[in-house]
Amino acid sequence: MAGSDEVSNKQVILKHYVTGFPKDSDMSVVTKTMKLKPLNGYGVAKVLDSTHPNYKKGDLAWGYTGWEEYSLIASPLLLIKIEHTDVPLSYYTGILGMPGITAYVGFYEVCSPKKGESVFVSAASGAVGQLVGQLAKLAGCYVVGSAGSKEKVDLLKKKFGFDEAFNYKEEPDLDAALKRYFPEGIDIYFENVGGKMLDAVLLNMKLRGRIAMCGMISQYNLEQPEGVHNLMQVVGKRIRMEGFIASDHYDLYPKLLELVLPAIKQGKIVYVEDIVEGLEKAPAALVGLFTGQNVGKQVVVVARE
Amino acid sequence: MAGSDEVSNKQVILKHYVTGFPKDSDMSVVTKTMKLKPLNGYGVAKVLDSTHPNYKKGDLAWGYTGWEEYSLIASPLLLIKIEHTDVPLSYYTGILGMPGITAYVGFYEVCSPKKGESVFVSAASGAVGQLVGQLAKLAGCYVVGSAGSKEKVDLLKKKFGFDEAFNYKEEPDLDAALKRYFPEGIDIYFENVGGKMLDAVLLNMKLRGRIAMCGMISQYNLEQPEGVHNLMQVVGKRIRMEGFIASDHYDLYPKLLELVLPAIKQGKIVYVEDIVEGLEKAPAALVGLFTGQNVGKQVVVVARE
Repeated sequence: MAGSDEVSNKQVILKHYVTGFPKDSDMSVVTKTMKLKPLNGYGVAKVLDSTHPNYKKGDLAWGYTGWEEYSLIASPLLLIKIEHTDVPLSYYTGILGMPGITAYVGFYEVCSPKKGESVFVSAASGAVGQLVGQLAKLAGCYVVGSAGSKEKVDLLKKKFGFDEAFNYKEEPDLDAALKRYFPEGIDIYFENVGGKMLDAVLLNMKLRGRIAMCGMISQYNLEQPEGVHNLMQVVGKRIRMEGFIASDHYDLYPKLLELVLPAIKQGKIVYVEDIVEGLEKAPAALVGLFTGQNVGKQVVVVARE
Repeated sequence: MAGSDEVSNKQVILKHYVTGFPKDSDMSVVTKTMKLKPLNGYGVAKVLDSTHPNYKKGDLAWGYTGWEEYSLIASPLLLIKIEHTDVPLSYYTGILGMPGITAYVGFYEVCSPKKGESVFVSAASGAVGQLVGQLAKLAGCYVVGSAGSKEKVDLLKKKFGFDEAFNYKEEPDLDAALKRYFPEGIDIYFENVGGKMLDAVLLNMKLRGRIAMCGMISQYNLEQPEGVHNLMQVVGKRIRMEGFIASDHYDLYPKLLELVLPAIKQGKIVYVEDIVEGLEKAPAALVGLFTGQNVGKQVVVVARE
């Protein structure tokens, strides 16, 4: 848990505040012994030293760590101990970590799915989307996903078992695409992208549809977010749109493990990761997220066991 | 309940499909004995004749009627019988009718208010808004309303007991206006207008805020609705936005009466109506709604008892 002053500490540094899309050149990889401003994110770590009674040397944990070789974790609230090591440890950055809780909470708690309902997932091959789609299939729903390449669309249909999938970049009219896959409308939309897709979805929601507002990756890096024009649909169709953040719901983590761990071992749920080796690759991997370069959950290997 | 072929029937006729804002000249008032296409809306009526066992001559009812002197009501589901006549009968088009159910359901069922919470109501002096504000005060909330004239703002503060009120037409920066009245943010927004106001409200919502999506009068007559840019706030602030329609909740009507009837009689809840006399005035009254000419619930007297 503690970095020592004697070890050199390779870090990804943000050189300046980023407006718009991040570029590789906005970051640099440096080797230091003092802390500058490493980026933060969810990682899996092995405890090297600990003054907290719950953690001892050699324990594994996942949580909010720096983008660096060694992190000093100031609060145990930022970590969850890893108890099950018979799955890839990297899964604790994804399906068994924060994105897993996000998918679980958004789908079950926010959307209250019923068997036979129609579910649409955007950014469906990403860290969260691929699990949402598989949870929806397990719940007996009809599931369609959108993604940004033929490879991802194939993955959705062949690997994750989505009923249908389409490449949004090849659809000049998103409303028409949704009407093709949902002639009777959408009960549940798991929102990961925002903007034009949300506008098209609103036109295709059914009465009393539910929209889990998970993220809006198409909007994060715009100086002015796109306008959404079809909110009147929310009134007439009695739609519920609800934002949520995984970290409010860590109490449900045992339920996620209970559902997903055996399903992974039985091959009923699969998870695709896009793994790059070495912190040096981290800036390019981050940049790639915003243009959809990654296929599956983006993972950066800092060190192997 | 039945129009006779022998009576002349004055009606407000829609001359053609209206794009944009309705003008007086889009409608005409005619006297006919045959049905053309009268407009429909909520009215109070006295039964002249009935073949339904629940209704007899002389009964009073409110519900979905034509804009005409005599209406033939095909289904009893479109009417609710009036049992309490010791209040103005016109109230059954407003506070004791559909707008009353709308205020009750939107505030209590959609927003789940708690004592001490901060409530913002747009179009606050209208048929629904004035009741929402008074319900919120009865529930122990801090309430601010917006309206479109000094006269209406005075009404909100002096007659309906809103804590604060402002004229949105005199606020060049709606975000700044909301920050002035809600320095700690808004828990509950009762949405009646849409567009720029919704965008400003999103910036000022508190964590876990609730937005009852009741209507968007600023948007109904635009060829292309305005874009709403700040929906990302819904994710980070865990906001719930929910559309609803009063007619789904008529089962709660007895609860509305139980709460509001005694409060009206005790003077704890007041209701302001803008009454015009005669069907001839109906077209101008409808047109006036979209430019905020009415002060309080707009009522057209077709006939007095």
